[in-house]
Amino acid sequence: MANVWDILAEGSIAAVGFSIHGQPFVIPMLYGSDRELIYLHGSAASRLMRQLETGLAACLTVTLIDGIVMARSAFNHSMNYRSVVAFGTAKKITDAAQKQSALRTISEHGSPGRWAEVRGPSQKELKATTVLAFHMEEASAKVRTGPPSDDDADYALNIWAGVLPLHVTAGDPIADPKLRDAIELPESIRNFETRQLKPRSKS
Amino acid sequence: MANVWDILAEGSIAAVGFSIHGQPFVIPMLYGSDRELIYLHGSAASRLMRQLETGLAACLTVTLIDGIVMARSAFNHSMNYRSVVAFGTAKKITDAAQKQSALRTISEHGSPGRWAEVRGPSQKELKATTVLAFHMEEASAKVRTGPPSDDDADYALNIWAGVLPLHVTAGDPIADPKLRDAIELPESIRNFETRQLKPRSKS
Repeated sequence: MANVWDILAEGSIAAVGFSIHGQPFVIPMLYGSDRELIYLHGSAASRLMRQLETGLAACLTVTLIDGIVMARSAFNHSMNYRSVVAFGTAKKITDAAQKQSALRTISEHGSPGRWAEVRGPSQKELKATTVLAFHMEEASAKVRTGPPSDDDADYALNIWAGVLPLHVTAGDPIADPKLRDAIELPESIRNFETRQLKPRSKS
Repeated sequence: MANVWDILAEGSIAAVGFSIHGQPFVIPMLYGSDRELIYLHGSAASRLMRQLETGLAACLTVTLIDGIVMARSAFNHSMNYRSVVAFGTAKKITDAAQKQSALRTISEHGSPGRWAEVRGPSQKELKATTVLAFHMEEASAKVRTGPPSDDDADYALNIWAGVLPLHVTAGDPIADPKLRDAIELPESIRNFETRQLKPRSKS
């Protein structure tokens, strides 16, 4: 499971799937995890959260794209990627402390250090938010790394082959036009700016 | 629908969901589209393709992440993103010319210009590959752009707020260790290197 949690730690969006009367839905959602549970949140009024909290069978998939594998043949082209496909069910978190902690986990997952810099959730906001704990029953990680695998005969071709690495990077922060004067960039954003979000495997 | 096709044109991986005996599956897949159909491919021997080609109800979701919306409160944090959720069914392409064309569309989607530079698929490779056309019955695009929306009272807080843009960028190509001498980088890779993959909305 180490691989599963490592991949989840690097992702930012999960594709959450479930099925209602045979019709599948796949919805992109923010998430966070503490290497034990995966946390999801949303408006308490949303149909999505009301469906998920019934505990129906769900599938949560996270995919990190590391590069395009350029082979000598069209057929052997591929991607370097890491993905997790996790099966399980979501349960609504009702305990107030656990709910607050899960929200913090989701926040810190997406923007580390930010939670301590901002106004925390009010009682009204907490009431308007449903937080779910996704319990994994089964999960698998798939990883592809390294150069292309070409057919033996194709290595003689006069065609460039290799990997084009892909990275997610943060650009320059764009201040809110309504930002008050003389507010400097906080540490969380300065740290974000300079780190490459997803250090890719050296393939 | 213009928005839907524009978002699909920029994505690289679709999360494809379907359900078997009530158990949902969400699988990351490469795709391509010609603004009429979405094409998927995979090994003819794979369970995934054999399931999808039965024409069972499917949901195909593509998400582009444009930035992290840093609000003054934890509650109003958000993402700038563009996503498509498409419902429909997949049909196996049996016509040889249409199959070849769909494979080219998928290839050009992921690495434009590459198809003409490499060895095309052999009859054996074509036979080993299933290509599906995903027919959309219903699709919706969701887009969030722009600065945070904070509560009125929070604008007075001494907290930085704004957007941290996120981009997918290509790194330096890594040549296959088995690359023959004196093969230069082809045009498709040189072009890739210098373009930012997903020009983000100026929010």
